Amino acid sequence: MARYDRAITVFSPDGHLFQVEYALEAVRKGNAAVGVRGTDTVVLGVEKKSAAKLQDSRSVRKIVNLDNHIALACAGLKADARVLINRARIECQSHRLTVEDPVTVEYITRYIAGLQQKYTQSGGVRPFGLSTLIIGFDPYTGVPSLYQTDPSGTFSAWKANATGRNSNSIREFLEKNYKETHGQETVVESGGKNIEVAVMTKDQGLRQLEEAEIDAIVAEIEAEKAAAEAAKKGPARDA
Amino acid sequence: MARYDRAITVFSPDGHLFQVEYALEAVRKGNAAVGVRGTDTVVLGVEKKSAAKLQDSRSVRKIVNLDNHIALACAGLKADARVLINRARIECQSHRLTVEDPVTVEYITRYIAGLQQKYTQSGGVRPFGLSTLIIGFDPYTGVPSLYQTDPSGTFSAWKANATGRNSNSIREFLEKNYKETHGQETVVESGGKNIEVAVMTKDQGLRQLEEAEIDAIVAEIEAEKAAAEAAKKGPARDA
Amino acid sequence: MARYDRAITVFSPDGHLFQVEYALEAVRKGNAAVGVRGTDTVVLGVEKKSAAKLQDSRSVRKIVNLDNHIALACAGLKADARVLINRARIECQSHRLTVEDPVTVEYITRYIAGLQQKYTQSGGVRPFGLSTLIIGFDPYTGVPSLYQTDPSGTFSAWKANATGRNSNSIREFLEKNYKETHGQETVVESGGKNIEVAVMTKDQGLRQLEEAEIDAIVAEIEAEKAAAEAAKKGPARDA
Amino acid sequence: MARYDRAITVFSPDGHLFQVEYALEAVRKGNAAVGVRGTDTVVLGVEKKSAAKLQDSRSVRKIVNLDNHIALACAGLKADARVLINRARIECQSHRLTVEDPVTVEYITRYIAGLQQKYTQSGGVRPFGLSTLIIGFDPYTGVPSLYQTDPSGTFSAWKANATGRNSNSIREFLEKNYKETHGQETVVESGGKNIEVAVMTKDQGLRQLEEAEIDAIVAEIEAEKAAAEAAKKGPARDA
Amino acid sequence: MARYDRAITVFSPDGHLFQVEYALEAVRKGNAAVGVRGTDTVVLGVEKKSAAKLQDSRSVRKIVNLDNHIALACAGLKADARVLINRARIECQSHRLTVEDPVTVEYITRYIAGLQQKYTQSGGVRPFGLSTLIIGFDPYTGVPSLYQTDPSGTFSAWKANATGRNSNSIREFLEKNYKETHGQETVVESGGKNIEVAVMTKDQGLRQLEEAEIDAIVAEIEAEKAAAEAAKKGPARDA
Amino acid sequence: MARYDRAITVFSPDGHLFQVEYALEAVRKGNAAVGVRGTDTVVLGVEKKSAAKLQDSRSVRKIVNLDNHIALACAGLKADARVLINRARIECQSHRLTVEDPVTVEYITRYIAGLQQKYTQSGGVRPFGLSTLIIGFDPYTGVPSLYQTDPSGTFSAWKANATGRNSNSIREFLEKNYKETHGQETVVESGGKNIEVAVMTKDQGLRQLEEAEIDAIVAEIEAEKAAAEAAKKGPARDA
Amino acid sequence: MARYDRAITVFSPDGHLFQVEYALEAVRKGNAAVGVRGTDTVVLGVEKKSAAKLQDSRSVRKIVNLDNHIALACAGLKADARVLINRARIECQSHRLTVEDPVTVEYITRYIAGLQQKYTQSGGVRPFGLSTLIIGFDPYTGVPSLYQTDPSGTFSAWKANATGRNSNSIREFLEKNYKETHGQETVVESGGKNIEVAVMTKDQGLRQLEEAEIDAIVAEIEAEKAAAEAAKKGPARDA
Repeated sequence: MARYDRAITVFSPDGHLFQVEYALEAVRKGNAAVGVRGTDTVVLGVEKKSAAKLQDSRSVRKIVNLDNHIALACAGLKADARVLINRARIECQSHRLTVEDPVTVEYITRYIAGLQQKYTQSGGVRPFGLSTLIIGFDPYTGVPSLYQTDPSGTFSAWKANATGRNSNSIREFLEKNYKETHGQETVVESGGKNIEVAVMTKDQGLRQLEEAEIDAIVAEIEAEKAAAEAAKKGPARDA
Repeated sequence: MARYDRAITVFSPDGHLFQVEYALEAVRKGNAAVGVRGTDTVVLGVEKKSAAKLQDSRSVRKIVNLDNHIALACAGLKADARVLINRARIECQSHRLTVEDPVTVEYITRYIAGLQQKYTQSGGVRPFGLSTLIIGFDPYTGVPSLYQTDPSGTFSAWKANATGRNSNSIREFLEKNYKETHGQETVVESGGKNIEVAVMTKDQGLRQLEEAEIDAIVAEIEAEKAAAEAAKKGPARDA
Repeated sequence: MARYDRAITVFSPDGHLFQVEYALEAVRKGNAAVGVRGTDTVVLGVEKKSAAKLQDSRSVRKIVNLDNHIALACAGLKADARVLINRARIECQSHRLTVEDPVTVEYITRYIAGLQQKYTQSGGVRPFGLSTLIIGFDPYTGVPSLYQTDPSGTFSAWKANATGRNSNSIREFLEKNYKETHGQETVVESGGKNIEVAVMTKDQGLRQLEEAEIDAIVAEIEAEKAAAEAAKKGPARDA
Repeated sequence: MARYDRAITVFSPDGHLFQVEYALEAVRKGNAAVGVRGTDTVVLGVEKKSAAKLQDSRSVRKIVNLDNHIALACAGLKADARVLINRARIECQSHRLTVEDPVTVEYITRYIAGLQQKYTQSGGVRPFGLSTLIIGFDPYTGVPSLYQTDPSGTFSAWKANATGRNSNSIREFLEKNYKETHGQETVVESGGKNIEVAVMTKDQGLRQLEEAEIDAIVAEIEAEKAAAEAAKKGPARDA
Repeated sequence: MARYDRAITVFSPDGHLFQVEYALEAVRKGNAAVGVRGTDTVVLGVEKKSAAKLQDSRSVRKIVNLDNHIALACAGLKADARVLINRARIECQSHRLTVEDPVTVEYITRYIAGLQQKYTQSGGVRPFGLSTLIIGFDPYTGVPSLYQTDPSGTFSAWKANATGRNSNSIREFLEKNYKETHGQETVVESGGKNIEVAVMTKDQGLRQLEEAEIDAIVAEIEAEKAAAEAAKKGPARDA
Repeated sequence: MARYDRAITVFSPDGHLFQVEYALEAVRKGNAAVGVRGTDTVVLGVEKKSAAKLQDSRSVRKIVNLDNHIALACAGLKADARVLINRARIECQSHRLTVEDPVTVEYITRYIAGLQQKYTQSGGVRPFGLSTLIIGFDPYTGVPSLYQTDPSGTFSAWKANATGRNSNSIREFLEKNYKETHGQETVVESGGKNIEVAVMTKDQGLRQLEEAEIDAIVAEIEAEKAAAEAAKKGPARDA
Repeated sequence: MARYDRAITVFSPDGHLFQVEYALEAVRKGNAAVGVRGTDTVVLGVEKKSAAKLQDSRSVRKIVNLDNHIALACAGLKADARVLINRARIECQSHRLTVEDPVTVEYITRYIAGLQQKYTQSGGVRPFGLSTLIIGFDPYTGVPSLYQTDPSGTFSAWKANATGRNSNSIREFLEKNYKETHGQETVVESGGKNIEVAVMTKDQGLRQLEEAEIDAIVAEIEAEKAAAEAAKKGPARDA
């Protein structure tokens, strides 16, 4: 019972790294984040904490650019996120300077996941309490990507995925409703009303959706649903 | 039960960082601090410990400048506060020297929150027992801001907020009474009688209110309240 | 009971290194990996986790090149694997630069196993939760090799071997069915349907099999099995 | 119960820093120290341990100069005190050399309190078991000051204050009897007979009172008290 | 009971170094190793783990050269062995380069034992789980030697000795059967059938015996035994 | 109960530094040391362990010079003493070289006490198990001094004092019998028969008394005592 | 009960250094060592472990030279001994090089004891499990010396002494039989039959006695004893 407050991440007898699993718990308590990869857009959505009444609406965005063609959203400890984001941004700039080319999405994903792994194997530090969703376009081929990393430092590529609070049920929703061509709608619908959404296209980079745009999408979805419901009920009455 | 006296901040099985939460307890035991952002002023108030009889009235101010256009108030361990304040001031100066421009309020807030985060992830140190309220004006646009940071290293922007002892009830008061144009009055009313107040405007920077000014505001508020009470009671008698 | 969460890998009274054995548990929980050495090909197969519905089929390969003539597959923690792979690749390049010759398969195996050993004897780190299968051709003699390393840092040479989940039963299958000339078939058959396979030849280096190729092999194997079954049943009916 | 013998000062669940509080216990066991700020003098008094019979009367003074215009008295561990005093003296000299001006009383108080704070936040050290009273005159304005620091690294300004053994009852005495013009008398009366007293004036700096001077003050105080008592009793007899 | 999982090798109340003794347990669980010093040959034998069916017969030798005239066999952790062997080989080369002379057997034995001792007295490391048998010829006098080192870092010279699994019974066998002139036979007989044997002579250095040679020796020994048995039984029948 | 074997000296809840108090126990178990300051001599005496029969009478002196005009005796761990003595001697020489003046007795006392304090506040070391008596003459004024330091790093000046085994009863003896002019006699009488004595004068420095001299003093004291006793008994008989 | 397996040597409540005392237990379990100082010879003897049957008689000597005029024997951990011996030899050579004079016996004794002390006061190491007997001749005066050091780092000079197993009873024997002129005989008689003996004279340095010489001495001693016994019994019969 006192075994989790130790100075280093080590194996348990059945081969688990407890500190990593506890960090995952911190992720599971964090706001949900959703990513959907379309054919020529990639969309990220992040659940907004029901903001305190006086919180500043101009507050810090949760979906951030790492470079012109790459963006990131997180679930977990916000303060940890800033550390990873800063280091990833510096790596993007430094790569441009030394190699004279932008990083690929996979390159920066590996970089972030590598940092996360390092904090699970060295003494004197704890893992990052953070899962990330990374989106972007390949700077050469223009192919869109969506990656996920977690506190253990593993990463994987996805068409659509979610992390954080209720990510399991969001993922089920995504599996039922994923279409390559409706990224924005899927993200908005999966995430509920209180959501921050950003869309990236190859040419225009990242654009944060206005609240009005999101409301419009919500309205549209609800109209469609009502119509579908009505269609379903109509014949029922006839019977 | 012996799990809190360890050399490093690590995750508990349910994903908590206990040392950070214990540091928050130290904040909750500290004097209350209140911040209110107006349209062209930002106001900070800090509860004064009922001073010992012989304590020097010329004693150290609890609301301090980080730069001409930025000020800070804290709840928590006073000795920890000085460390953060010193480092933030040096960063402000160093930024002016190297970039030849003053820092923005968000920049220095990120810097302070970043320091706080660092002390939650490295071995051999404890987190800062400190929440801060940071106010200031953007040196370019003149827009006022109010930020809060906490021991975990997270920060957020606010129209009005409180931290430290009784911050929950003060925040409720703020939510009921917040108007952009009455910063001073709101801070004084929220904080009770024993309060230190400082007002920042874009042009004049930070000004600590004299005790007489505070007393005048208190008197005015009480007169208003009495009038309101009388108004309420009047009709009651008539019945 | 609290003895496994310590900062260093030390001996237990009966001469065991517990952290190493717990790391082996992490290996036993990882996807299975199989290697078969033929006369002029070496084949690696890695069990694919039944991918989530939306996971990207273009996702990261689990069988990777260390150099043109050497490849590696792992069972265990994927994030740890990347660390070892990166360091091994750098060693391959650095060897080419300094000695002006490619590494031998045994050389890089010793290098990887040496890294693994180091993490079992120094303080402040945990062992790698990783077993590796390393294949390749001697750059001078063209002789093919298959090596295995484990978390303790031991390594050994094999005609065919498996590691990870169910490695014992796979190894039994290999012992019954190993022929030097049927590497691909053996790997596919041993690994079940959901498998990633790569074949290395001296001249063409590593080639990942397409899913269609794997399906063809599976079909062929099943046809053979059915024929054999029929042959067995035929005489039975006659009786 | 074994929780106080750890290598670092960390938070308890209710937000306390135990090592700092235990260090305060060491202060409470130390000899009492008293400081009184007058209009143009500042006085320090330190309780003398009832000296062993053969102890050298020329022994080390407990009230020491940090610079010509600043002096310090401590309650707590004498050996710790020397460390702080040495470092403060060096800082005073170094400030004169680099800035070509003497330090202010507040500057050196912040420096000492900063050192004390540092030993509460870093690993591998314990806090100083020490509270200090610092007196002095501003080198520019000539204004006298009295500061107190404690093991947590907090400091505060006072008209009169006490620390160490029985400091609560001495402080109560000070609150009843404090007059800006009778520093010496107040210190002597508050401290009991066995006391070392030093007086600082702007022009003459620190002067340790001779035992005869202290005895004279004691005699005077007792004469006054007797007179007062007699005055009180006189009318009583008449009744 | 939790006392063996600590970060450093320290004395127990009765003067034992437990970590060293636990390391000896790891040695006792390792394959047996035998060494026999003859007049002009020295022989090492190492028990082979009953190899897995598919293990590569060209696998790594367990008897290795440190220099032309010195060889080593180990019992214990194979991964630890490689570390010691690498460092000893480097020392041999470095000695040749700096002193322009090959090392003596005793010199390199002291070097290896010294490394082993060092890991029993410094913090942050565990002892090597390893006993070694070192053979060789003096490069000047041609005198053959056999040394043994153990995890504590002690070493000793022997005519014949064994370490690892069943070393006690092998040693008893050696004590009964040792003759300076039959090194190979003794090693083979002591070690059972599954054994790797290498013979070193002054002029030809180390030579690993072929399996056929070992089989021939085994056959010879068994023939002799049968003859002896027959001789013993013969008279018995006559009775 | 296990709280004393920790890596650092920290405060207990009631403000004690246990490691320092345990070190004082080591002092209390050590041989007694006595010092007496006269008008123009200072005398040190150290109890000799009843030497083993074959111990070398030319053995190491327990009263040693730090410089020509300063000497030291210790109670506690002899091996620790050598460390302090070496460092103090080096400081004396180094002071002569850099300042071109000998150290004062107080200077070197502060230096030694400072070293002792340092070992009570840093991690990774234990306090010195040592109290010292330091005697000497001021190199400028010729005034004699006697200082005592203890494991906490505190020091104090004395006319006469004792430390180590039975120091309390020796101190009582000193308090009854101290005269400035009979240093040697007092030391010898206080220390019992088995004692090493050294006398320092301003001009001749330190001189170790010969055993014969000590015996002569003992004889003289006993003669005086006998005479006193006789004087006392004489009148008694008359009665 | 778990208090002996800690990372540092600290005081117990009654002022003991347990790790040092446990190291002394390791000494008490080691082979006995005896030293006798004569007028112009010094003799060391070390009990030989009843050697295993096949151990090499040319094995490592237990009495070793540190320099031409200084030798050392140990009781305790052999591997630790080599570390101390190596460092002492280097110090002897380095002293010759820098000071251009050989070390004195006391100098090197202090050096060795100083090393031993250091390992009792610093973190991260354990004490040496070793007592040493050091003999030698003063390079200037030719006076012979015998010193003993122990794990605490204390040292002392002796006419004759023993350490290790049964050292108490050997010391009693020495006390009854010590004569300055019969070093060899005393050492041999005290040590029993299985003993290694070395004699040092000023002019010839250290000479290891041949087994034959030791046998001769044993025979002589037994003859003397028999004669003495006979002499004692003779008169008894007459009665």
